[in-house]
Amino acid sequence: MSTELNPDNTSFVLHGVEDVRFDQRPIPEIHNDQVLVKVVKTGICGSDVHYLQHGRIGSFVLEEPMCLGHESSGVVVKLGPNVREDLGVKVGTRVAMEPGVCCRSCANCKAGLYELCPYMSFAATPPIIFGTLCRYYVLPADLVHPLPESVSFEDGAMMEPLSVGVHSVATLGRCKSDQTVIVFGAGPVGLLCMAVARALGARRVIAVDINKERLDFAKSYAATDICIPGSKKDDEDGEAYTTRVAGELRQQLGIPERGKGAIDLAIEASGAPTCVQIGLAVLKPAGTYVQVGMGAKMTVPVPLFHIISKQLHVVGSFRYGSGDYPLAISLVERGLINLKPLVTQRFRFEDAKEAFEATKAGKDKDGKGVIKCIINGPE
Amino acid sequence: MSTELNPDNTSFVLHGVEDVRFDQRPIPEIHNDQVLVKVVKTGICGSDVHYLQHGRIGSFVLEEPMCLGHESSGVVVKLGPNVREDLGVKVGTRVAMEPGVCCRSCANCKAGLYELCPYMSFAATPPIIFGTLCRYYVLPADLVHPLPESVSFEDGAMMEPLSVGVHSVATLGRCKSDQTVIVFGAGPVGLLCMAVARALGARRVIAVDINKERLDFAKSYAATDICIPGSKKDDEDGEAYTTRVAGELRQQLGIPERGKGAIDLAIEASGAPTCVQIGLAVLKPAGTYVQVGMGAKMTVPVPLFHIISKQLHVVGSFRYGSGDYPLAISLVERGLINLKPLVTQRFRFEDAKEAFEATKAGKDKDGKGVIKCIINGPE
Amino acid sequence: MSTELNPDNTSFVLHGVEDVRFDQRPIPEIHNDQVLVKVVKTGICGSDVHYLQHGRIGSFVLEEPMCLGHESSGVVVKLGPNVREDLGVKVGTRVAMEPGVCCRSCANCKAGLYELCPYMSFAATPPIIFGTLCRYYVLPADLVHPLPESVSFEDGAMMEPLSVGVHSVATLGRCKSDQTVIVFGAGPVGLLCMAVARALGARRVIAVDINKERLDFAKSYAATDICIPGSKKDDEDGEAYTTRVAGELRQQLGIPERGKGAIDLAIEASGAPTCVQIGLAVLKPAGTYVQVGMGAKMTVPVPLFHIISKQLHVVGSFRYGSGDYPLAISLVERGLINLKPLVTQRFRFEDAKEAFEATKAGKDKDGKGVIKCIINGPE
Amino acid sequence: MSTELNPDNTSFVLHGVEDVRFDQRPIPEIHNDQVLVKVVKTGICGSDVHYLQHGRIGSFVLEEPMCLGHESSGVVVKLGPNVREDLGVKVGTRVAMEPGVCCRSCANCKAGLYELCPYMSFAATPPIIFGTLCRYYVLPADLVHPLPESVSFEDGAMMEPLSVGVHSVATLGRCKSDQTVIVFGAGPVGLLCMAVARALGARRVIAVDINKERLDFAKSYAATDICIPGSKKDDEDGEAYTTRVAGELRQQLGIPERGKGAIDLAIEASGAPTCVQIGLAVLKPAGTYVQVGMGAKMTVPVPLFHIISKQLHVVGSFRYGSGDYPLAISLVERGLINLKPLVTQRFRFEDAKEAFEATKAGKDKDGKGVIKCIINGPE
Repeated sequence: MSTELNPDNTSFVLHGVEDVRFDQRPIPEIHNDQVLVKVVKTGICGSDVHYLQHGRIGSFVLEEPMCLGHESSGVVVKLGPNVREDLGVKVGTRVAMEPGVCCRSCANCKAGLYELCPYMSFAATPPIIFGTLCRYYVLPADLVHPLPESVSFEDGAMMEPLSVGVHSVATLGRCKSDQTVIVFGAGPVGLLCMAVARALGARRVIAVDINKERLDFAKSYAATDICIPGSKKDDEDGEAYTTRVAGELRQQLGIPERGKGAIDLAIEASGAPTCVQIGLAVLKPAGTYVQVGMGAKMTVPVPLFHIISKQLHVVGSFRYGSGDYPLAISLVERGLINLKPLVTQRFRFEDAKEAFEATKAGKDKDGKGVIKCIINGPE
Repeated sequence: MSTELNPDNTSFVLHGVEDVRFDQRPIPEIHNDQVLVKVVKTGICGSDVHYLQHGRIGSFVLEEPMCLGHESSGVVVKLGPNVREDLGVKVGTRVAMEPGVCCRSCANCKAGLYELCPYMSFAATPPIIFGTLCRYYVLPADLVHPLPESVSFEDGAMMEPLSVGVHSVATLGRCKSDQTVIVFGAGPVGLLCMAVARALGARRVIAVDINKERLDFAKSYAATDICIPGSKKDDEDGEAYTTRVAGELRQQLGIPERGKGAIDLAIEASGAPTCVQIGLAVLKPAGTYVQVGMGAKMTVPVPLFHIISKQLHVVGSFRYGSGDYPLAISLVERGLINLKPLVTQRFRFEDAKEAFEATKAGKDKDGKGVIKCIINGPE
Repeated sequence: MSTELNPDNTSFVLHGVEDVRFDQRPIPEIHNDQVLVKVVKTGICGSDVHYLQHGRIGSFVLEEPMCLGHESSGVVVKLGPNVREDLGVKVGTRVAMEPGVCCRSCANCKAGLYELCPYMSFAATPPIIFGTLCRYYVLPADLVHPLPESVSFEDGAMMEPLSVGVHSVATLGRCKSDQTVIVFGAGPVGLLCMAVARALGARRVIAVDINKERLDFAKSYAATDICIPGSKKDDEDGEAYTTRVAGELRQQLGIPERGKGAIDLAIEASGAPTCVQIGLAVLKPAGTYVQVGMGAKMTVPVPLFHIISKQLHVVGSFRYGSGDYPLAISLVERGLINLKPLVTQRFRFEDAKEAFEATKAGKDKDGKGVIKCIINGPE
Repeated sequence: MSTELNPDNTSFVLHGVEDVRFDQRPIPEIHNDQVLVKVVKTGICGSDVHYLQHGRIGSFVLEEPMCLGHESSGVVVKLGPNVREDLGVKVGTRVAMEPGVCCRSCANCKAGLYELCPYMSFAATPPIIFGTLCRYYVLPADLVHPLPESVSFEDGAMMEPLSVGVHSVATLGRCKSDQTVIVFGAGPVGLLCMAVARALGARRVIAVDINKERLDFAKSYAATDICIPGSKKDDEDGEAYTTRVAGELRQQLGIPERGKGAIDLAIEASGAPTCVQIGLAVLKPAGTYVQVGMGAKMTVPVPLFHIISKQLHVVGSFRYGSGDYPLAISLVERGLINLKPLVTQRFRFEDAKEAFEATKAGKDKDGKGVIKCIINGPE
């Protein structure tokens, strides 16, 4: 792949709600230990779509035009003067791009928790951080992760959401061989969490969703069992409902309440209140619950009773941190995770908006269901 | 103290709602590695009062007459034939009595989490486990913990709730020197959690409650700072309210949001929904939150947003386990915790019912506020 | 398999150095939560052979006749009156027998470290604990681990040494997916450690031994790379030698000193001083080193320099503990470890002595190399 | 204290073995997030003396003139353009200076283990890193730690060795309240380790050394018990000797082999082979052993037997890392550690060489024993 610089840095820039344009931007300069990457593939994430639709997520509000996109792979085309050789990054190296640049000097960065850096510059985050849907992007050399030969650029673009799965299931969930894992939500993040659990040797991976089609895909992909929770009866309160559903789920799948085969780890990737509650109800004592899904409601009724009486460990999962990208790449390289089935649609750069619309609709213009849309870099 | 057996095993037995009687019970036989303890002091706990008032807690329902009480100290008066010498328990040994007998062979017991044993026999738990408000009580020798000379029988009776504090703050909360700890609820368990945090070297211990009197006591006892949360404004939703209050609390006390001096550990010992929410809002990123209080409502609205975006560790605390009693005793022995100020009323065994009434009312018949009532063993 | 009791409890009993006899022993009685197991297969371990040859290991000295053997599987033929149903053990259940009975009430047992119980009764350990080379053996029900249908009795007998591997590599070594692991010693324990590392997702498993034949087997079995360390030069001191050899090993196999692909975990299963030293020299900074092999010399020259300057974690591995047998069985059940290639010789019970001789010699009378000899239970 | 720049940057520069000179050096420029510190106090460390005497330590060899010193405190006199306000560092701030600048982008730095950064620039380390015995020194702002008012400049200079103690005892040794800790070596690092153990709530701190005078000081400072190991008998091998001495030590001090009161944590700060061996012999099962002392011999005979059969955790301690300086400062600020008794001699900058000589001799020219010499910054 050519590493000669093209003077044109076409970028897919959000100017306001539903107002995106193909702008020309200057090729950024690189300093110190930075590298310039020519972007090759970019996946579209729900948050990209959300910014397009609303111009904000929570307190992150678009103030100036901002390039979208943060799930990208590319080729290194230029090295800053201080890039260390040991990082294995050269001109021509194919890389997955880790889109969050931390400060490296706050207490969290120094304690090995850079995902919690309060000075994080994360791609495509208002008010000012530019995203990766452009021709050329700058990153520090240690945040571009070389791709082994067997890992494609599309795989490389998928390393960003896969790292979310690795962070949730491996780093925080500490998933181990022989465990029984339940994953709520069979969207892209949930599916990747299932894949990671399988790759780490989970004995059983149970997918829970309300959409039969998604569950069927999950079963064909990485789940060993699937389950649609029954609905609430009129005379049931929330607690009674989720306790009943958790019991039914265990019975239906032959899962004991505790001991060998009980549910060791719950990954909540839907953000749906019912799933949060079932997740806590269904875990074994001393089990681990990881909340990675952020739902429409930020406050959710939670049965503290289960947390206390089973002494559960509940942990929130935010982005990804130390070691997550390398493990994600290794799992794909070694064939333990296959990302190809998740890329359901591909678009040319000039059709980027179409990719956003398909992601938003959950299906493309031919009616085909969307898991992940990938946009090619500018030709 | 005499270790001769008295033929009379007077017991304070619950026969039904608000129906307690002084029954005579046979002196229990001891086997294997069990010891017979003559009970000397017993503290009254909210759960004892709850059984008296309602005959049940959740699914634990009184079916037959049951002796109340589980916070006791006493003197060993007889040893089973297989009591090992290395346990340091002899006839005449003054002991704190750990009231939960686990199975020792389930996966949790063998993994060092005996508090989660599903076969636990816990004193004064319906339908059938007898409590300690009697003259003679049987326990395995390893569950009676010798008291150093400087630790009184009253202190010994307080080791049960203090072990709850040790379990929450030390074992699960992993409180360390220099940390800033916030404790919600200034009742007996909250106060003991504050005391443990101080004893473990917390730099700052912030007590939060809605009762000024209790906070004043907390300040005189183990808190470095106290705080009554402001009330909710009419136009505020729950999230806005708790976020505002958390911010005000930090500002009022000069606590940064993160970094040096930020709140490392929250202990929720009230069960109040507002406290749960403020606790999660006020913690620093990567902070630890321990839920030990069980409120009237078992399901509480919880801001998942804080758990996710700050990657909090939330853990439920259930009773106490490996190492908790020994550490509790050591902290008192070494003068790092003073339990005396917490014993506000003392009763003769024949006046046991009065102790329950005072605990229920929160004050005794002279109007004096109650923290902990202690009942003497039968003369 | 019949579960009727045979009145004859033939046992293979050590009476003195090199003096073993087939004695008749009474069928043991079972109490409480114990079960009676009819032994079906027993593996021979180096420690069994050592007792036969020397009548002692360190301070464990034969004083009375003692039955040998501790690596066994069998069928449950009788249940004690208090065996809990949830353990899944019935008359007729095929089981792996965990041969160490701990006290369950010391601080180590209660902390989840029962392998360190000072009151442990371990099969075939002088002065008095009988081993499993007999027809009937008694164990508490929680120490017989049901075998899934796909796991044979021979596999079941191998669960004892495999649990040593699980304890070293998984429980203490915390081996994770993508790690590079080096194992010193390609005897039975070393081979099983390699198998566990592979089963847990190690990227690379390097076997080190001085015996080419054993290494070739290791390569065919579970190692990805093999290495015979070069010999010491005349003008080299120990430190220079091991540092050189460690460097050569890394260079030969293309392993970096640190970072991606460096050696994360060393398992020392030979006890050879040179291997101890190379292991510490070859690890990456912050790496983990597990000492499981006990060599002829109990004191070994150790380069503290590497431990300090690389801040290594060194841990000793003793037998197995909480969760090790269940994980061992699961890894075999799920096909992640194949134990069959390790069973190289099989013997009838009446030929038991021949099995000891083959194990001692390292080859059988036909000259075939021995990895593990299995003896059938008495017919 | 004046923060105006003096044009003269007098530096104490090592030109070769025993050849140190007071050179004039240009005032260094500061960039980005760096600050310029005017050095006020500097402690002398054994490694400084070693460079003076030998021009090298191991593979670190003096090639060009190099300023000595790395234990310093000072006043910030100038800020780089990008120093973040939240660090609390302003012109005039009194600070302890952390002398190791890590790369912040290697795997160790990002995993929270910056002490293991292979690109570390550590003050006064050949071939090229300048030390702090000068008037002006440059550091990144996050490596100068503000001193609370109650903490003196001398205390500030002592934060470097104290952080070694914090790293060993708190961070790696995980010392907890109620533990029994044994510290080998009563030199400056050993004494500081004892002080940290006491400050973290150790029940008992046992100092071991062969020098009675040093032990007496240790007892007056931070040890609860002291012990001089008996000598080796002619007919004893090393193992027998250390096992005997460990047993005698336990007996003499009334310390059980295991259980309550047994030795939980050993800190080896002498590097003496005998101490290494006694330390491993005397620990309780599952105990933790931290090697911080580097002796003359880099390879030491180690009883693997104890490591295996007691399943000990052995860890090397290298410098200090995330959180160590802040905890060190807090322990002194809160009066839990008193550093004053350790500063036994003070020197003017122009008498720096005398401080090196006193440190080397272990006593000053008046015959007074040396613990730590402090040199004032240039007037």
